[in-house]
Amino acid sequence: MSGIVVLTGGVGGAKLVLGLIHAVDPARVTAIVNTGDDFRHLGLHISPDIDTLLYTLSGKANAAQGWGREGESWAFLSALKELGGEDWFQLGDMDVALHVLRTAMLARGESLTAITAHVAGRWGIGAKILPMSNDSVATMIESDEGLLEFQRYFVEKRCAPAVRGVRFDGAEASVPAPGVVEAILAADAVLIAPSNPWFSVDPLLAVPSIHVALTQTRAPVVAVSPLIGGQAVKGPTAKLMGELGLAVNNDSIALHYGDLLDGFLIDSGDACNVPGLTIDHIATLMNTLDDKVRVAKAALTLAARLA
Amino acid sequence: MSGIVVLTGGVGGAKLVLGLIHAVDPARVTAIVNTGDDFRHLGLHISPDIDTLLYTLSGKANAAQGWGREGESWAFLSALKELGGEDWFQLGDMDVALHVLRTAMLARGESLTAITAHVAGRWGIGAKILPMSNDSVATMIESDEGLLEFQRYFVEKRCAPAVRGVRFDGAEASVPAPGVVEAILAADAVLIAPSNPWFSVDPLLAVPSIHVALTQTRAPVVAVSPLIGGQAVKGPTAKLMGELGLAVNNDSIALHYGDLLDGFLIDSGDACNVPGLTIDHIATLMNTLDDKVRVAKAALTLAARLA
Repeated sequence: MSGIVVLTGGVGGAKLVLGLIHAVDPARVTAIVNTGDDFRHLGLHISPDIDTLLYTLSGKANAAQGWGREGESWAFLSALKELGGEDWFQLGDMDVALHVLRTAMLARGESLTAITAHVAGRWGIGAKILPMSNDSVATMIESDEGLLEFQRYFVEKRCAPAVRGVRFDGAEASVPAPGVVEAILAADAVLIAPSNPWFSVDPLLAVPSIHVALTQTRAPVVAVSPLIGGQAVKGPTAKLMGELGLAVNNDSIALHYGDLLDGFLIDSGDACNVPGLTIDHIATLMNTLDDKVRVAKAALTLAARLA
Repeated sequence: MSGIVVLTGGVGGAKLVLGLIHAVDPARVTAIVNTGDDFRHLGLHISPDIDTLLYTLSGKANAAQGWGREGESWAFLSALKELGGEDWFQLGDMDVALHVLRTAMLARGESLTAITAHVAGRWGIGAKILPMSNDSVATMIESDEGLLEFQRYFVEKRCAPAVRGVRFDGAEASVPAPGVVEAILAADAVLIAPSNPWFSVDPLLAVPSIHVALTQTRAPVVAVSPLIGGQAVKGPTAKLMGELGLAVNNDSIALHYGDLLDGFLIDSGDACNVPGLTIDHIATLMNTLDDKVRVAKAALTLAARLA
């Protein structure tokens, strides 16, 4: 097995990728990251899921908090608040440096791909972190409070509004970032991280050429379920599934991914009864690094069996 | 005497304005501030002289350092450095909040005038702080190392290059910011702060309608000299004068301002022999708040005598 591709959102997905780079040579791992959550805030280009990957893989993430950097300070945000600036999105002092640098590099014509590679290189990250696209794709939440930008729904409103639908503005015309299609086609295994299928994985699948590449690759596609006992480990997956009228179980997720999926790694206590899909079980909760490595290895084992 | 206008650059000028707002009702004071030093750095709009006025008049300035905020922290800058970002311009965590907010407000169409008033209001500053212009005017240094943006010359190169000339790109087409001409015409006294005449005051005089208003106002125009015993208290004034082939004395400064000037407040130990100009002497060094109030009062006294 040489190349391993992971389609991933933020926190949950980053845990699997961290497990992977401790399970195999990091140089073999390519994380293709959701950028549907990217947004401009105070003029700064923020890429929440890419940031989470960068912080997690470089050992800088605040694991307890689930976002941002360990040892972060907050002088910027309190000065901003004092000036009456918008403070609903938490911006630590070190975190702001990444956003300012990214925004400045984008303004002088560098791509999100190049900027992400630059930061990953500075921080000694051995895996490749690729944005799904350098085009603007915006995840928009159709809710009972109207149409909301993803971060407004997710952070400012703490996922309180009931979701009626999700759309990805700009996706139809978007093209994958350089290296994305190539990595999928050349992979020996494609993993779908235990990220929220509707919010964090669907944006990737909505980029037309990514979807096509997933149907063309000879690699088996294996998802790791974000559900444990009908609950999400973190985030609004279970609430969302209920609002979309779906049973909160692995069958709903497997049916959602449909023909793309060859294998599904689910929690030891759970079931999935979708014909034609190969299922493996393992304890999927990833608290420790050992957990992450164990789950990553189990996903690779399932993929190897399907190859 | 009702309205008092001060034409000012950064540090030295801010000291005089601070003295003024403790000498008279701050509501009578309008500081018209050099924006020729404004620049974009890492995509952020930085207005060094306006910032110095805002920090000084709100009691937030780092007096010992001469720039930036007291109690500043530096997590942003060290994270930026770690990412290979440009770090020649010192940006404190709280300082960055002001730049980010200003840049975002400019991007959504607000004027530098409105933004400055907003910040001054949040910080309870009683005096009016007006940018000289909302148009872009860029102080450019013609040096033996080529043409340099002002901050590159001043901060990055620490004023080391020899100056051959100074120009103000965009000045000819610029118009004064709202309130500037009105304040000058309605003033009972116009003071020129002890800022660098060539770098910090000339940009204001290069805005055509400001120059005209200064010739039309009935108010006496009184400058406070930045020289004490042939030396500048701070900054490159004396070095610059030498490089421009001028004698480093008050005569050179008075002749530079020419007909605009009615009175000149110079240090007790110094002389100025320019025909037709009224001279007063005082100890012009402004270390303590008492010094600043004393110099401000002396400038007002000279102006009152000339009215």
